[in-house]
Amino acid sequence: MASQVLMKPVTRVAVSGSTHGNEMSGVFLAKHWIKDPSELCRSTFSTTAFIANPRAMEKCVRYIHQDLNRSFKMEFLDAPDSQDEPYEVQRAKELNKIYGPKGSPEAHDLMFDMHNTTSNMGACIMVESPQDPFSFHLANYMKSKFADDKCTICVYDLEGQETYTMNSICKNAITLEVGPQPHGVARAECLAQMKVLIRHGLDFIERFNQGAAFPAFEMEAYVSISPEYFPRHSNGEISGFIHPKLQDKDFLPLNPGDPIFQTLDGSEVIYEGESTIYPFFINEAAYYEQEIAFCKSKKKWISVPAIQAQLD
Amino acid sequence: MASQVLMKPVTRVAVSGSTHGNEMSGVFLAKHWIKDPSELCRSTFSTTAFIANPRAMEKCVRYIHQDLNRSFKMEFLDAPDSQDEPYEVQRAKELNKIYGPKGSPEAHDLMFDMHNTTSNMGACIMVESPQDPFSFHLANYMKSKFADDKCTICVYDLEGQETYTMNSICKNAITLEVGPQPHGVARAECLAQMKVLIRHGLDFIERFNQGAAFPAFEMEAYVSISPEYFPRHSNGEISGFIHPKLQDKDFLPLNPGDPIFQTLDGSEVIYEGESTIYPFFINEAAYYEQEIAFCKSKKKWISVPAIQAQLD
Repeated sequence: MASQVLMKPVTRVAVSGSTHGNEMSGVFLAKHWIKDPSELCRSTFSTTAFIANPRAMEKCVRYIHQDLNRSFKMEFLDAPDSQDEPYEVQRAKELNKIYGPKGSPEAHDLMFDMHNTTSNMGACIMVESPQDPFSFHLANYMKSKFADDKCTICVYDLEGQETYTMNSICKNAITLEVGPQPHGVARAECLAQMKVLIRHGLDFIERFNQGAAFPAFEMEAYVSISPEYFPRHSNGEISGFIHPKLQDKDFLPLNPGDPIFQTLDGSEVIYEGESTIYPFFINEAAYYEQEIAFCKSKKKWISVPAIQAQLD
Repeated sequence: MASQVLMKPVTRVAVSGSTHGNEMSGVFLAKHWIKDPSELCRSTFSTTAFIANPRAMEKCVRYIHQDLNRSFKMEFLDAPDSQDEPYEVQRAKELNKIYGPKGSPEAHDLMFDMHNTTSNMGACIMVESPQDPFSFHLANYMKSKFADDKCTICVYDLEGQETYTMNSICKNAITLEVGPQPHGVARAECLAQMKVLIRHGLDFIERFNQGAAFPAFEMEAYVSISPEYFPRHSNGEISGFIHPKLQDKDFLPLNPGDPIFQTLDGSEVIYEGESTIYPFFINEAAYYEQEIAFCKSKKKWISVPAIQAQLD
């Protein structure tokens, strides 16, 4: 990597709520900022808050026909318009026109996408890999300013797959997950955490645009590897539940031999992996439909080069 | 009241899960007991577990057309069958035939209805008032055996209104609320608490049927008074959220002058009642659609007369 990466200043940022219509921190904050955007204003770039899935928000459900945050593959974005296409595909095309087009020079510079989880993940900043160093600097700055509570950086490794999330239509993407919070509920401390994360994120961009130099650094992050599925009965139904010793232990080490599931007759299922992993999204409500019990990650050090804005 | 109430022994008990299809302790326990009812078996009466709202369970939602647990008024149960009646009205009629008919001598003796809440209510046993002393003895026994964790008896005072809940079709009704648990999620400790409550409830009935005398006693219970609504903007949207000092404080005293809501700009709303109350169902997800922020109760002592089964 180059010793310092010179990058264009940021001009346009989008902040999304209601990508999942029952994740209420984003729903309420986006509504709040649409009504009064003053908290989002900085001197060197523009920020727009928006409601990603208004119909799902109206019904307080995750989605209407399919998960909006899995609807930004090119097969959806390029599909010819049709009367009977899923609502979220139609909405993905609309959003891609406004904040993308995906992969184009016209795309917005950055999208913050605000999510909640029923898992005990605290404030979690997710970046997709491979990413340019800007997102890592941004995430690192947000985490460093978030002094009071648990704040974790998680790298979502797509392993060469095509990106599919909503914020992948912008040049840089940050997904915020704050929890634990039940879907359909707004907890004041989760709202406050989300608000603080966005504030620090916008402050970083302002400093970057004003010419601040951000030196190279090493960053510890949790890099996703694979999901762990619930055990099932022969009829396909879930037969074991997250073990009390694992519940709420997101981002803490899970070692081979540790219990991960408990059945209703009290027996245990043991983690049989070969090495220590760090579970997250433990007992996330939205993942039951895919029978995902938790996601697994490895702790890794990532080298991030210095960056600075190239000012005229 | 008589010094001792002689009552008929219990012959038939029903245990319901999925009255709300996304409250997972009941969903999973009812499925478990339908498959293997051995844990429900006692020598002196029969117990049947059932799924109350299979279509809501399938979709993992509270209800399809209307809340099943508000669908047992006579106006619904007596309505002529119709193609376009709400699914839950149709289902209420079916269930009333099986476990009722409501108010008739053929009705089942008792229904335990298993619910979860996103509120921090621990294990809560709800009885409707006015009630015969059997339900109070049963609730008191369950609470007394539930040594390890928070267990509360709550009396739902309908103030002379017609009953509307599913278990009102049986001669006695116990509603169990266990939380906090996000809807759509099963937490092992909530499953375990619900299972223990049902076990103690069935044990009480067995002892009662075998002729044990249960002496008169005084019981402290939380008696519901009225709901508290979220503050709203002029457009009807929620403008304030449960205050961090109130969140998770179910059944703890709330005094006039204590903060109850916090807005996104940090201002507080104060409780302006005239006396101490005990909030419950604080920040329950399902109550947002009615804009109920929490329910209020008063702590009261209730005198319960002695009971004994009248054996042949």
